Amino acid sequence: MTTRIQIYDTTLRDGCQGEEVDLTVESKLAVAERLDAFGVSYIEGGWPGSNPRDEAFFAPAMALGLRQARIVAFGSTRRAGVAADADENLAMILRAGTPAACVVGKAWDLHVREALRVSREENLDIIRDTMRFLRANLDEVIFDAEHFFDGWKANPEFTLECLRAAAEGGATLLCLCDTRGGSLPGDITAAVAAAEGAVETPLGIHCHNDGEMAVANSIAAVQAGCVQVQGTVNGVGERCGNANLVSIVPNLQLKLGYECVSEQQLHGLTDLAHFVDELANREPNKQQAYVGQSAFAHKAGLHASAVRRHSETYEHIAPEVVGNYQRVLVSDQAGRSNLLYKARELGIDPAELEPKVGELLQELKELEHAGFQFEVAEASFELLLQKAIKGEKLRYFELVGFRVINEKRHENEDPIAEATIQVRGPGGVLEHTAAMGTGPVNAIDTALRKALVEFYPSIEEMRLVDYKVRVLDDKHGTEGKVRVLVESHDAHHHWTTVGVSPNVIEASWQALVDAIDYKLYKDTKRTPAVSEASANSA
Amino acid sequence: MTTRIQIYDTTLRDGCQGEEVDLTVESKLAVAERLDAFGVSYIEGGWPGSNPRDEAFFAPAMALGLRQARIVAFGSTRRAGVAADADENLAMILRAGTPAACVVGKAWDLHVREALRVSREENLDIIRDTMRFLRANLDEVIFDAEHFFDGWKANPEFTLECLRAAAEGGATLLCLCDTRGGSLPGDITAAVAAAEGAVETPLGIHCHNDGEMAVANSIAAVQAGCVQVQGTVNGVGERCGNANLVSIVPNLQLKLGYECVSEQQLHGLTDLAHFVDELANREPNKQQAYVGQSAFAHKAGLHASAVRRHSETYEHIAPEVVGNYQRVLVSDQAGRSNLLYKARELGIDPAELEPKVGELLQELKELEHAGFQFEVAEASFELLLQKAIKGEKLRYFELVGFRVINEKRHENEDPIAEATIQVRGPGGVLEHTAAMGTGPVNAIDTALRKALVEFYPSIEEMRLVDYKVRVLDDKHGTEGKVRVLVESHDAHHHWTTVGVSPNVIEASWQALVDAIDYKLYKDTKRTPAVSEASANSA
Repeated sequence: MTTRIQIYDTTLRDGCQGEEVDLTVESKLAVAERLDAFGVSYIEGGWPGSNPRDEAFFAPAMALGLRQARIVAFGSTRRAGVAADADENLAMILRAGTPAACVVGKAWDLHVREALRVSREENLDIIRDTMRFLRANLDEVIFDAEHFFDGWKANPEFTLECLRAAAEGGATLLCLCDTRGGSLPGDITAAVAAAEGAVETPLGIHCHNDGEMAVANSIAAVQAGCVQVQGTVNGVGERCGNANLVSIVPNLQLKLGYECVSEQQLHGLTDLAHFVDELANREPNKQQAYVGQSAFAHKAGLHASAVRRHSETYEHIAPEVVGNYQRVLVSDQAGRSNLLYKARELGIDPAELEPKVGELLQELKELEHAGFQFEVAEASFELLLQKAIKGEKLRYFELVGFRVINEKRHENEDPIAEATIQVRGPGGVLEHTAAMGTGPVNAIDTALRKALVEFYPSIEEMRLVDYKVRVLDDKHGTEGKVRVLVESHDAHHHWTTVGVSPNVIEASWQALVDAIDYKLYKDTKRTPAVSEASANSA
Repeated sequence: MTTRIQIYDTTLRDGCQGEEVDLTVESKLAVAERLDAFGVSYIEGGWPGSNPRDEAFFAPAMALGLRQARIVAFGSTRRAGVAADADENLAMILRAGTPAACVVGKAWDLHVREALRVSREENLDIIRDTMRFLRANLDEVIFDAEHFFDGWKANPEFTLECLRAAAEGGATLLCLCDTRGGSLPGDITAAVAAAEGAVETPLGIHCHNDGEMAVANSIAAVQAGCVQVQGTVNGVGERCGNANLVSIVPNLQLKLGYECVSEQQLHGLTDLAHFVDELANREPNKQQAYVGQSAFAHKAGLHASAVRRHSETYEHIAPEVVGNYQRVLVSDQAGRSNLLYKARELGIDPAELEPKVGELLQELKELEHAGFQFEVAEASFELLLQKAIKGEKLRYFELVGFRVINEKRHENEDPIAEATIQVRGPGGVLEHTAAMGTGPVNAIDTALRKALVEFYPSIEEMRLVDYKVRVLDDKHGTEGKVRVLVESHDAHHHWTTVGVSPNVIEASWQALVDAIDYKLYKDTKRTPAVSEASANSA
């Protein structure tokens, strides 16, 4: 029989303690819906009373009508010297209207003495009272035993007494917290066993990643008998973060045979991870286990050729199982066989490319040396490939010249940005126009499209969805080279292009021109593709 | 007795397989010197024969005169059907002139069949011959048993035979590789025990991080008896990376009592980690265990106040032990007490700030909402703090106006960038000047300094060392807001400032002005500080 493990997500509460993680109420609600669809058992929504944004989450969250997950309100045990039913924080937990609460209390005598400044006996009363009061009002009350593992090392008897007090008060689950995040699996296994000896209540685990061990520690705790894992999407959280559910779930389910979510839901893992990064405005970690863009990427020639024949030779799982996919990387280390494979992926006959492969490799090498990167900018790469095959660049227009002016006329006014541009289109027709913009790049982007739409009306359909700037050469200050990545889409495609220069305007210009060239190139190719589709459906 | 564990660094070889990791020969030499100073036992320098850059490393590396670390050349076992002494790759290993070699060979029957396409018996011969040939020429030959853990699960007897063949050939250490990176600690412990039963030769461990378990797996292997850990600085490497030595070393040494490097060398951990990120041009991971900028950062009001009284309440180790330090973060969640603490850190009397704290919190909140971030840009924060105390901004000059022109006159020419600027200095004196630049920001930066140096000659000492641009609001394409961070230094200080705007010129302008204001503010404060120092030394 497979054991079912409850996944308890605290991205919206503990995760938001992370430096640079800051979610609006709307974003928190969107994440909650995704978590529910992914199949987590609990969603800890925030700490009513700690800040207004957390409070504002609960009413709309309860109205979402989640299918599977229970929303949990977080809080801490009653204050010392205040009756539980007179404690404002506990009242706010109940006012959140959730079916479950999770309440953190002290379980390390050092903290009772130094942070709470009460007697050990009083701490036990605080825990017991708090649990009793909340259980009188709620189905489920989880006790988070703060610093359980450090406490157990320092004074095992007292720490286990804290668990017993919570159990006596009616806690439905006791969650053992490695709050400082410095424990190792050996400590976890021994302390979970001690907890199991002390109480009958089901146990959970809540780890932090200060020793890069949170995933391993959470798994060790499950193997020792915990039935609930608390963590966050992508391991966001204070300091080094919380335990990363995105690694824990597939490790438990695919490697150890526990059941966390359905097979179908597990396919959504990569999407969930990227969705949370996007809302939290974090750069996704390409190297992230299971879901990273590089997690199943192969660049060494040897690996890449073996992995094509038998993916299990270098892949520990099939990437599709977690919604990720295999990538063969284009880089100067890639070699001929990778380039030909890549061409095939792009629908190009490798025989056409074969005679030009040496030249193309050389060009890639030089461009990568200059700071270009085609691993991400596959549209720019495809244009290079076409150029290699045809012997010349695809050309849809010629730049005669542009000028961008930024002018600031008063300290407290934003500068204005104005671009003028002159291009020559098909048949040598000149177009000369101008546009304002929020900044110089936006002005030139707007002016360029305004000029070209006269020749190519389909440019209207194209949208720029992302614009990234990376300073390649930090050490030269404002003289350093920058790499610009531009992501565009239309109804059919989604593509990324690249430009590199010490001048951000020039780097942006290169990426913008590639974006438009790619759009027009795909448009000319689409017509036959459409007729094929009609032929098939006939 | 403490057990000594050999740290074997492969940042320069396996680490360079990582997407986006690309080190020049000069950088590789600089990293080798740092690794030696840090106290690693082995530095794997590259694979002579795989690319010219790897080959070019060995001669100058051997001439570095490292104090402690042995340079290792990497390669693979002889080709099938070729005698070891006729194999060009093995000859290249010897030509590298290192005292030690590490050679990878197949240990999983699937790979012998599908990748190598030879019989199992021939694979054993290949391993044995290769070891024998290299040991006749070298003191130390390490055998990397590729896919040891997966092989052992699939066909334990054959996999152990591969180890025995290497031992018979004279390998001085057998390193067990989790090449796909998908093993869990339970697998590791069992397979290491089986290897120990099969051979007398010392064992090592080489893990990859595809299940976010590489650190835990490496530690489990050491606990099971391995005496060498192979890994990379910051876990760089292919796919999800190699085992991260930056976490493994302190875990082994501080938590489990093994000896890897000296106490003094361990202080250099944070510097080593940042140095490698810098040379590899990777954004350091702020959340990284032990060495990340956030690893000992506290923002929750509750934690921050407890951690100030007793750092062990929320810190698993003293940050200084690994060369890191405690930070209390400024953010809208920070609250009054954090702000007052921060003021004290900056040498400001909290009593001066006290009456303005409410107003300052409100301003910080609004600015952070707009995209400013002061957790990094502490100089901009200090200027805000001074403004709050004094009731007005520190002012050293007034901008009358600037204009930046970017002009591109031919497709294949870079645009020129020219800035003109007019500022009013002390006493209302006008200065009107102009400068060219590599790009618009560099032009305005150059023109501004040129204008101000007339009034403040000390601006000459100031250097801009880093310039970063982040697009905050990706979804609006080139209209999105950008945040610019500028890092500057002079002989006394090192400071970071911030600017935010949809216009990159305006955002850069704000950060540049803050950088100069901060410099001039510190200059005016330095005179009394210097006299104090003289008084003390008298």
